[in-house]
Amino acid sequence: MTITKDIIKRLNKILGDKSVLVSRTDLMSFSYDATSNWQGMPEIVLFPTDIKQISEVLALANENSIPVTVRGAGTNLSGGSIPVSGGIVLCTSRMNRIIEIDAVNFTATVEAGVVLNDFNMELAKQNLFFPPDPQSYLAATMGGCVAENSGGPYGLKYGVFKHYLLGMKAVLATGEIVSLGAKTIKNVTGYDLPLLICGSEGTLAVVAQATIKLLPMPEARQTVLAVFNDVITANAAVSKILSRGVRPAKAELIDNWIIRRIEEAAPLGLPVDAEAILLFELDGAVETVSMEAAKVVELCFNAGATDVREAKDKKEADNFWTARRMGFSAIYGNAPTALAEDVTVPMDKLPELMERIKRIGEKNDVMIVTMGHAGDGNLHPCILTDKKNPEHYARAQKSTQEIFDAALELNGVISGEHGIGLEKRRYLKNAMPPEAIELLKKIKTVFDPRGILNPGKIWE
Amino acid sequence: MTITKDIIKRLNKILGDKSVLVSRTDLMSFSYDATSNWQGMPEIVLFPTDIKQISEVLALANENSIPVTVRGAGTNLSGGSIPVSGGIVLCTSRMNRIIEIDAVNFTATVEAGVVLNDFNMELAKQNLFFPPDPQSYLAATMGGCVAENSGGPYGLKYGVFKHYLLGMKAVLATGEIVSLGAKTIKNVTGYDLPLLICGSEGTLAVVAQATIKLLPMPEARQTVLAVFNDVITANAAVSKILSRGVRPAKAELIDNWIIRRIEEAAPLGLPVDAEAILLFELDGAVETVSMEAAKVVELCFNAGATDVREAKDKKEADNFWTARRMGFSAIYGNAPTALAEDVTVPMDKLPELMERIKRIGEKNDVMIVTMGHAGDGNLHPCILTDKKNPEHYARAQKSTQEIFDAALELNGVISGEHGIGLEKRRYLKNAMPPEAIELLKKIKTVFDPRGILNPGKIWE
Repeated sequence: MTITKDIIKRLNKILGDKSVLVSRTDLMSFSYDATSNWQGMPEIVLFPTDIKQISEVLALANENSIPVTVRGAGTNLSGGSIPVSGGIVLCTSRMNRIIEIDAVNFTATVEAGVVLNDFNMELAKQNLFFPPDPQSYLAATMGGCVAENSGGPYGLKYGVFKHYLLGMKAVLATGEIVSLGAKTIKNVTGYDLPLLICGSEGTLAVVAQATIKLLPMPEARQTVLAVFNDVITANAAVSKILSRGVRPAKAELIDNWIIRRIEEAAPLGLPVDAEAILLFELDGAVETVSMEAAKVVELCFNAGATDVREAKDKKEADNFWTARRMGFSAIYGNAPTALAEDVTVPMDKLPELMERIKRIGEKNDVMIVTMGHAGDGNLHPCILTDKKNPEHYARAQKSTQEIFDAALELNGVISGEHGIGLEKRRYLKNAMPPEAIELLKKIKTVFDPRGILNPGKIWE
Repeated sequence: MTITKDIIKRLNKILGDKSVLVSRTDLMSFSYDATSNWQGMPEIVLFPTDIKQISEVLALANENSIPVTVRGAGTNLSGGSIPVSGGIVLCTSRMNRIIEIDAVNFTATVEAGVVLNDFNMELAKQNLFFPPDPQSYLAATMGGCVAENSGGPYGLKYGVFKHYLLGMKAVLATGEIVSLGAKTIKNVTGYDLPLLICGSEGTLAVVAQATIKLLPMPEARQTVLAVFNDVITANAAVSKILSRGVRPAKAELIDNWIIRRIEEAAPLGLPVDAEAILLFELDGAVETVSMEAAKVVELCFNAGATDVREAKDKKEADNFWTARRMGFSAIYGNAPTALAEDVTVPMDKLPELMERIKRIGEKNDVMIVTMGHAGDGNLHPCILTDKKNPEHYARAQKSTQEIFDAALELNGVISGEHGIGLEKRRYLKNAMPPEAIELLKKIKTVFDPRGILNPGKIWE
């Protein structure tokens, strides 16, 4: 315990007692994130309503060396928001104002606790578009998305959060409030601190506000569903389509096992007999979209699809994408523990990665199901296991390690979008040269000399 | 002098004597960049041919605290590659291999000394496109573009270098060679060191190789030229077009004085009587481009253009863009000293910035001519002066300061793409909070404890 009664009193004074949780039952809810195999209890949970409160909390925490873990909606998938060292959880959910949507300059400024979906709904009213689309967008917060550099299916055509981040108001570990970056598309004033903080998993600073770039809403969208006899052919098809110059906004893969679990949970019209499906979205001007959709249909057939069709209307298209989004929860409902991985390889190495994952599952006698962003090389193999069964869990973890090794051997990375968090920190040394890890640690010390911000994450 | 005869001997041994320059006449060429008011003599110039040589040079320089300034083609516009502290200039021009163009994964890996234009020509053969387009692209090197986070007219639609950088091989100040990032579109493995080094102006590490993302070449392009009676109406027109959902690839502004100087230097068909012109490029699928070009024509007329026309063929379009690219050199030929500035504001603030710049010029009795990337708020006002005339030069510098103040007051930044270098280091304290500048300095110390890499840049 690092938090004394006196500190609780002082925190109550900063935030007001309606913004402070200390009872064990209340704290329990903040001991998890969406990762199924980690837990850590906070000592106190705080709900700041403005940046000044964050500043005062951090100054106090720093003075007393109290760990501070920032949490948005806790939807992250690598244990990043689990307070493994106890201390304070700083929950941004009450800082949820959209400060500005500037339709002329194509920018917006939001507080950290704004839910991505709420933001998207406001943008849609003004015909604006913000592409980063983690599949938890119904709950995920903008601050969490900055901290994790979030992305999703739109990564293929539109990149991830860092490609849209222009500036931020952040609070340093010592409590200083700083404005970094600007509301301009171009800016080369000193090192790019917003981009250093983006993806740093809450270890460098607390992001209170973000300013981001927006795009005009595409005039039209079309969804194409293609059925394949095996996942490897399906993955290879994506390569062939992209190399012909067609640029879908999304290209997603789902395997048969996951298709069946999704359809059991909610019948949304996926073909349950398909060994694998690819879901594409094309977007842009009306004429371009219909032309490209026709091309994707043709190229999928050429690449071995057994059936390909365009969604007949917006409702069917929405159903397909809802199904895709349900992937992780459909998996979670079917195993006591699911290790959801996040390896990424250069796109043309996907078929080989799939082959290796298949062999890894067979060799270790564990079930590995797969979905992912086939269009950008980011796969989510999920290992079904039970952490209460040590023998099985050991085989599952061995499989994880082997999947990481396979990805690195194929010039890939161990995390495409979920981050390192707790889940992958013991693998970091395989994924980065030791000199680079030294640089990370020293940068951490520059920002957070006492190590209070999200300790225990990224490296061991 | 920090370089002894013994060190010269050791450097000769590392590089071979054909890769070492020491004579005063030879060194003189490396004492400038494209900025017209700074100079600094190196003591020795080296031309490494591989990363191992860079590593050995840095280890030696670090051991002896010798300043090292990396230089590509020296086209930068803020004094970034001028060796103001003497020491070594490390010129990357002989490391000019395109290591890989991967048309399936849409990535490429190049050595630092590859000239951007040479790279673009190779890409075109494979129908690939790399958007960052500093107007010095005929000479600028890829390493220089990483160091300066370069961009140009395509910034409007396609962003700048950092939006394409995936990974790099870099040499740290102490000589270690590190691979950072990866050949994958998504990667959240630790802090994003490649993006921290991108735009750091050679102060954090020496970039020897870069891996970047590519795009498919757009199927079609069309150029539109619009004539206006004044620069302020022209700038306002861009806002109006963008807010209607049209997304040109480029939207460039040139004022009458610059138009005349360009046409004097080489008649390329610009309308010499126009007070201001806007040059647009639309790109994408054939149908989309012709539709959008027609929309731009209509919207320009609505916004007050006196004449608007589409380029009649590729040759005319190329001529217009060549003319635009000649802007800076046309200015330089007409004044002993030209202070080429680079302020950026949110796009809808451009008309107000233009008004203020006009008043600043009148008040200080200096001539300020303007061109720039009207589409992304990045303006290049150029002050014509003569640094040998102290009284006039003082008024020019006062005008620079006032332009920076105006940009900052309008929520802008003091550099959109040229960097801070020497030119703007005394203004950094106006453009960033002191806590952020402290972070920059500490990050610099993490990477370069003895301060040998490009000392004297970014801050004073």
